Amino acid sequence: MNITYAVVGTGGIGGYYGGCLAKAGQPVHFLLHSDYEIVRANGLQIDSVNGDFHLDNPLVYRDSHDMPQCDVVLVCLKTTQNHLLPEILRPILHEKSVVVLIQNGMGMEQELAKQFPNTAIVGATAFICTTKIAPGHIHHAEYGALTLAKYCGQCDDCIQQIADDFTAAGVGVSVFDDLWSVRWKKLVWNIPYNGLTVVLNAATDELTNDKSSRELVIDLMNEVVQAGRVCGAKISDSFISKMITMTENMTPYSPSMKLDYDAHRLLEIQTMFTNPIRIAAEHGFTMAKTKVVENQLRFLTKQQ
Amino acid sequence: MNITYAVVGTGGIGGYYGGCLAKAGQPVHFLLHSDYEIVRANGLQIDSVNGDFHLDNPLVYRDSHDMPQCDVVLVCLKTTQNHLLPEILRPILHEKSVVVLIQNGMGMEQELAKQFPNTAIVGATAFICTTKIAPGHIHHAEYGALTLAKYCGQCDDCIQQIADDFTAAGVGVSVFDDLWSVRWKKLVWNIPYNGLTVVLNAATDELTNDKSSRELVIDLMNEVVQAGRVCGAKISDSFISKMITMTENMTPYSPSMKLDYDAHRLLEIQTMFTNPIRIAAEHGFTMAKTKVVENQLRFLTKQQ
Repeated sequence: MNITYAVVGTGGIGGYYGGCLAKAGQPVHFLLHSDYEIVRANGLQIDSVNGDFHLDNPLVYRDSHDMPQCDVVLVCLKTTQNHLLPEILRPILHEKSVVVLIQNGMGMEQELAKQFPNTAIVGATAFICTTKIAPGHIHHAEYGALTLAKYCGQCDDCIQQIADDFTAAGVGVSVFDDLWSVRWKKLVWNIPYNGLTVVLNAATDELTNDKSSRELVIDLMNEVVQAGRVCGAKISDSFISKMITMTENMTPYSPSMKLDYDAHRLLEIQTMFTNPIRIAAEHGFTMAKTKVVENQLRFLTKQQ
Repeated sequence: MNITYAVVGTGGIGGYYGGCLAKAGQPVHFLLHSDYEIVRANGLQIDSVNGDFHLDNPLVYRDSHDMPQCDVVLVCLKTTQNHLLPEILRPILHEKSVVVLIQNGMGMEQELAKQFPNTAIVGATAFICTTKIAPGHIHHAEYGALTLAKYCGQCDDCIQQIADDFTAAGVGVSVFDDLWSVRWKKLVWNIPYNGLTVVLNAATDELTNDKSSRELVIDLMNEVVQAGRVCGAKISDSFISKMITMTENMTPYSPSMKLDYDAHRLLEIQTMFTNPIRIAAEHGFTMAKTKVVENQLRFLTKQQ
């Protein structure tokens, strides 16, 4: 039996992943905001390195009160919008629904669990370069793999089915037991590259190729690894060099925070910097370098 | 008996301090580079909060080989030019000459002493807002006090005479025993404000007024104070709050490194950041936050 999906936040991430599932025949209900009229009229266009496709008549909604209750809700909002989640989610959750947070940073699951203590929550990280280039038009440039890990609730079978559905839709999926490690490992890349592309107005390749910024990137990565380990995350010794090599092999690009900054949108500083710094401090570890970048980001956003 | 002065580097600092001495009747020999012709033809104009004045016929030179040996050499170059000092200084030093380094940062005296092991060396910090606004035209906006402290050699009497001459010329002078503390205390202000005005493209008041950047400024100040103390500098507990209050009371301005950056000149990263970080490390203290800013500065200068 098919499970039904909701996609909350139909931008680069939600449009691509939801689009892949819908193309593969899954029932996917898309919640849209500013792009609702255009997508209802013209459908959803996905230009992907894996092959372009178009959804002629996606199931689209402007208000979650009009949506059916869904088995799986893929939350693809920026975390700066997470204060809206309680109101958005309440109408579309049944008692066995699973909420999957495909988001950057840390602390989102904890926050959501306070609002929905009986709901199963899964954390997910997306390793992907995808952007909404126009209303209803997603450009998927590179990569695409999802990593899923349970945060709370009874959802082991459901996670397996989600993984199967994504696999059938051509999306690589890994399922891990340990969300904590998944979140910290993602931060090892996100903290230096998201922070420094904004503060230094640079692309990923410039940061990686220059001697001074490369040293700074690696210093920050080391600090995140140390913080994560103090907090109980399992991160191998070779992880940093893997991240650097991966970045060297990537097409140079602007991470999400740089895109947000250039577009004068809110930055995910709270979940990507403030929460990890606070959580590390609660475990007795000071993220001194990360804190410098956090304060610089907060200053810069207020100057815009 | 008058002592003779040489001014090496007739910019905002050298033009102002040398100009004050010359106006007060001291024999001052100015070494100039690009501005030589204009100053020889038109003299030196100093617009000062303490009263404008003009030196009609200052003693100017384009090459230190043409200068007389002088009793006191005021080195007012940027430290980025210090590799030129051996060649410049050799012709103008006699065996009792005293070299006064009115410069920012740390490690300049040590470096010079290697080249001139028998020369008396004095370190000095200038608390002043002064800029060369055109060739031969200095604008002195605010403050002006000099702090002198012996580094090496027999120069106690000479320091006292220099202090008297500056006092007679209307320049406030303090003489301290402990150059080490003078240099570290100056860095408490210089590291955050010079570094962050460049990295964050901001003026001193913006950094001081915004909550996030103020926190970062104070974090960096605390790190410098800790580093200085580990290295043996005496810095009082109230020094940071004094520096913040002083900055709040200043007319907002761009520190020297910001002016250098905006003018695409070399930045004094080596003496203001790299040397203190190295010296602290030699004493077992890691300047983690300062290192972040250092790497950011090095990256940014290479992007220009």
